[in-house]
Amino acid sequence: MENRNILSTLETYQDFKALSMAELEVLCSEIREFLIESVSKTGGHLASNLGAVELTVALHHAFSFPEDKIVFDVGHQSYVHKILTGRKNEFENLRKLNGLSGFPKSTESEFDVFHSGHSSNSISVALGLKRGMEHQGNHSHVIAMIGDGALTGGMAIEAMNDAGREKNNIIVVLNDNEMSISENVGSIARHLAKMRTSPIYLRTKGTVSTFFSRLPVVGKGLYKAISAFKAAFRNMIIGDNIFEELGFYYAGPFDGHNLKGLCKVFDQLKDIDKPMVIHVMTKKGKGYTPAEEQPSIFHGVKGFDIATGQTPNGGMNFSQAFGDAMTELAETNPNLVAITAAMPDGTGLTKFSKQFPRRYYDVAIAEAHAAGLSAGLAISGMVPVFAVYSSFLQRAYDQLVTDVCGMNLHCVFAVDRAGIVGEDGETHQGVFDISYLTSMPNMTVYSPATYQDLKEMLREAVEDMHSPCAIRYPKGQENSEICELEQPYERGKAQILSQGKDVSILCEGSMVFEGLKAVRRLKEWGVSAELVNLRYLKPLDLDTIYSSLKKTKRGVVMENATRYGSVHSALCGYTDVPLYSVSVPDCYVPQGKVSQLLELLGMDGESVAQKIMEEFFR
Amino acid sequence: MENRNILSTLETYQDFKALSMAELEVLCSEIREFLIESVSKTGGHLASNLGAVELTVALHHAFSFPEDKIVFDVGHQSYVHKILTGRKNEFENLRKLNGLSGFPKSTESEFDVFHSGHSSNSISVALGLKRGMEHQGNHSHVIAMIGDGALTGGMAIEAMNDAGREKNNIIVVLNDNEMSISENVGSIARHLAKMRTSPIYLRTKGTVSTFFSRLPVVGKGLYKAISAFKAAFRNMIIGDNIFEELGFYYAGPFDGHNLKGLCKVFDQLKDIDKPMVIHVMTKKGKGYTPAEEQPSIFHGVKGFDIATGQTPNGGMNFSQAFGDAMTELAETNPNLVAITAAMPDGTGLTKFSKQFPRRYYDVAIAEAHAAGLSAGLAISGMVPVFAVYSSFLQRAYDQLVTDVCGMNLHCVFAVDRAGIVGEDGETHQGVFDISYLTSMPNMTVYSPATYQDLKEMLREAVEDMHSPCAIRYPKGQENSEICELEQPYERGKAQILSQGKDVSILCEGSMVFEGLKAVRRLKEWGVSAELVNLRYLKPLDLDTIYSSLKKTKRGVVMENATRYGSVHSALCGYTDVPLYSVSVPDCYVPQGKVSQLLELLGMDGESVAQKIMEEFFR
Repeated sequence: MENRNILSTLETYQDFKALSMAELEVLCSEIREFLIESVSKTGGHLASNLGAVELTVALHHAFSFPEDKIVFDVGHQSYVHKILTGRKNEFENLRKLNGLSGFPKSTESEFDVFHSGHSSNSISVALGLKRGMEHQGNHSHVIAMIGDGALTGGMAIEAMNDAGREKNNIIVVLNDNEMSISENVGSIARHLAKMRTSPIYLRTKGTVSTFFSRLPVVGKGLYKAISAFKAAFRNMIIGDNIFEELGFYYAGPFDGHNLKGLCKVFDQLKDIDKPMVIHVMTKKGKGYTPAEEQPSIFHGVKGFDIATGQTPNGGMNFSQAFGDAMTELAETNPNLVAITAAMPDGTGLTKFSKQFPRRYYDVAIAEAHAAGLSAGLAISGMVPVFAVYSSFLQRAYDQLVTDVCGMNLHCVFAVDRAGIVGEDGETHQGVFDISYLTSMPNMTVYSPATYQDLKEMLREAVEDMHSPCAIRYPKGQENSEICELEQPYERGKAQILSQGKDVSILCEGSMVFEGLKAVRRLKEWGVSAELVNLRYLKPLDLDTIYSSLKKTKRGVVMENATRYGSVHSALCGYTDVPLYSVSVPDCYVPQGKVSQLLELLGMDGESVAQKIMEEFFR
Repeated sequence: MENRNILSTLETYQDFKALSMAELEVLCSEIREFLIESVSKTGGHLASNLGAVELTVALHHAFSFPEDKIVFDVGHQSYVHKILTGRKNEFENLRKLNGLSGFPKSTESEFDVFHSGHSSNSISVALGLKRGMEHQGNHSHVIAMIGDGALTGGMAIEAMNDAGREKNNIIVVLNDNEMSISENVGSIARHLAKMRTSPIYLRTKGTVSTFFSRLPVVGKGLYKAISAFKAAFRNMIIGDNIFEELGFYYAGPFDGHNLKGLCKVFDQLKDIDKPMVIHVMTKKGKGYTPAEEQPSIFHGVKGFDIATGQTPNGGMNFSQAFGDAMTELAETNPNLVAITAAMPDGTGLTKFSKQFPRRYYDVAIAEAHAAGLSAGLAISGMVPVFAVYSSFLQRAYDQLVTDVCGMNLHCVFAVDRAGIVGEDGETHQGVFDISYLTSMPNMTVYSPATYQDLKEMLREAVEDMHSPCAIRYPKGQENSEICELEQPYERGKAQILSQGKDVSILCEGSMVFEGLKAVRRLKEWGVSAELVNLRYLKPLDLDTIYSSLKKTKRGVVMENATRYGSVHSALCGYTDVPLYSVSVPDCYVPQGKVSQLLELLGMDGESVAQKIMEEFFR
């Protein structure tokens, strides 16, 4: 810490606001060091934050927060913002239970107006905020900071379509690092690439300050200069672009690592009474070579060795098992195609994408389109598998209900990160999918407890089914004890993993292991529990379930999902046997380790065993 | 019929394909007459179909369906397509139970590849279809026909972003009538308006055929001509536009009522190996003066008098009651704002929009953005009310779960067309909202049985609440008998409408009247049923519910929604009393009259009374 002279003196936001430009330059490199050191220990999002250091410092220098407002899109690029707004000392508890959130959170600070997490909503929220503030006579600035990846989400364009017709000057800061989490795709990305090669950017990159120093310092000098420039050379130098066609004033691209230049840009543009896009070029991972070279790996890390850039080897997990199974299936099934919405690494599809590039579609951050595309592929006779995180599939709810299930199309949804995911917190917990997927007519819903289960289910969904299928599987690893207990997969059947006579414990997927723990504890207490791996969440294997319940006369259903629309709620009312629900209660699940959260919610094996004793055996 | 010489001879698609251009011209006016006459009797979508006559005929002339494929966006503009593909004799049963669908439906004809209904998905589906067909060596054409209104839905742009980088020549036919259902809004609309005034369109409007007659008839003449034209005068005459920036080849705008010109356009452009947008200008209601003058009223009609253009006066309904209540509340509450996604008339907000234009936002077809905008407005301290049809709110599922409820924001959702809506069929039934809304933490869900209920609930949601609220109400009218039975509204309480001792009939909203019918029939059979109007679906008034069930010892829950995630499923498992569910079974509900559909599904009062006798009293 000793050589972080400026950062260490920042106690309040006022301390920051008092810094000179020279001090801010030093601060930026101190922040970078701090980020690398801190995230190497706690894990978290590194590359995007390293890329946004100067940009965030410049925004805080030019604007007056918290009176002015900033809405971060997605939000994992908000670490620098947190450091500047009095939270640097909380980074040791980043992403831990009751610790600092990895995303902006209004409950954490008055500087965070919006609880970000999902993509492409920042412009909508900023526009609403601006309109509301104007209604109340408050003319403060509202900024949406959005990455080039999030810009492909349709909601962002919907918002620009709405915003572009008004005088309200929301300021969209386009943080363009040429990446989503992985490499960016699609024609918007190509359009941005074209803009990046415009002469104004090429000429001024690295020397933005020189360029700007020739402009008047006060008033709307830059705006006037660019406007005049554009009027003279319209379409020859800068060209029309998609933002201008959406009614925005556009300026840029600017070098996102030139602090002084950025400060001037924001100072000079902020009071223009038009919605505007300020296009800033940044480098993901900037200043830390391993992150610059492997930005996708350093997007979100568990921790790493600073000197070597070595990240812990995760080993096999459900995403990898899925990816391997896909590759295997594709070798014999020429009609199998894979779809991802900008998540080839996270979903385990990277290998598939290399082996079968012509049968692989990365559609950018565009889940609704991915579902529609699946529908079209299915109509043509292909078998599309859309691999997507549970909480992001929420963005295709209508397309699943109306298009895919409404036409009873053979589309497969590989629903990764189902159930509680842990450190990413509220916005990323995949706890709604059992509710929304089972409510859709024609949908078959699977839940594997092991990689082998997953493999069998995927094969069945792809090869044997002719209707929509969803397979929900958790983040992380299978449990070896469950693997040992498992019986061969049988189509349509649940599986009794251990026989019992006093109570049935019906579990789905990741809860099977918690169920096993409950069985063991109950055994110590003299209760013989039967452990059932449901495997199918819809349709349920009612034969196995009912005959188990008939034998034991009491049951619990353990689900890593909300109790509204749960398997429990689908079973209840259709059986006379008392049935108790172990599920996520009606609340948002905070960040923390998965095991901590299960305990917190009474969903771990020990709590369930106790609850069973209380409910049924006292 | 006698003077429809050509239309009446069309029995098969081959008959159509054999017609000469002169005959096609005549056919167009015959189709127009037929549409006016037919829809005046059956009701249905008129204005958009009148606008698409020449366009549809030209497509069918230029392409070879069903080998080539057309995906209609939204789909209510598919009547002409149905007439040409052998279904003209079925129009007398349009939108009736077991009759012709008002939307394309793959189960109805091999010419309908996609079951349309919701907006903005056609480009995604067409792209999937095209990619799949190419994988299988089928190089037939795939067309997405999309209106300028549907183009504002983010999913359409997501799809263009994906499609624009490929050689696959999906053909997007932009049917630009300058309207959604109501007037179009936003900067995309403005951008299109600018394109319409381009010299090429102004010069050729009405005389497209003259212009084209100078071009080579075979090969890619038009493409080459336009390309050369553009290269020479790039950005001076035609200009770059949003489609080109999304990687599409753009041609147009063309006069959509010049049949011969359109046929040439399609003939000459269809084989270009690039994704393209063919921009066609049409007039909604074309050829029928009342529909041209009031396209919004003639968008969907119940029937009308052809001579006068008089449509039946609907009288008061839930949408109007909502609109009136909003206007009243806005007079005293300066923070109340209203949002619609291109549905000011349908949602009853027209009056509000005129009285409070500065507090009214029509965001175009953009439900996800509307929800995000609501979130921003709520953060600023305003009270946003987003009025939207139940099945369309599905498009904002993630924004509701993650943004609005995740931050516990005070946003109000006026969920119109909840429950079975009737003639629009599968895609429009609002039967999923109880499931998805009650599964969201922090959400209060109301269901009014009368206009007075709705008014009280809206007032409470706007004035007294500080968290997300949804009020679901049906299409159509209240029932006067229920109005007479109603007791004054009480916060948080269900209402016992008639006392009974043998069975509790717990009803929400539109089912209260069916419940009343069941009570009366049961009385004839000597069973005393207690009728409860739930009013709150979340949180439930468990005091009233449990004390009723405790008294009667048996109950049914009647809901105009799917049984997955129903109120019944939330209650079951938490009471020992046998509880039976009356709800929409696990299927898509077809078109028909609401009363017919309730009967079909066993949800009408008579069926419920019988079921109660069978379940509980035999």
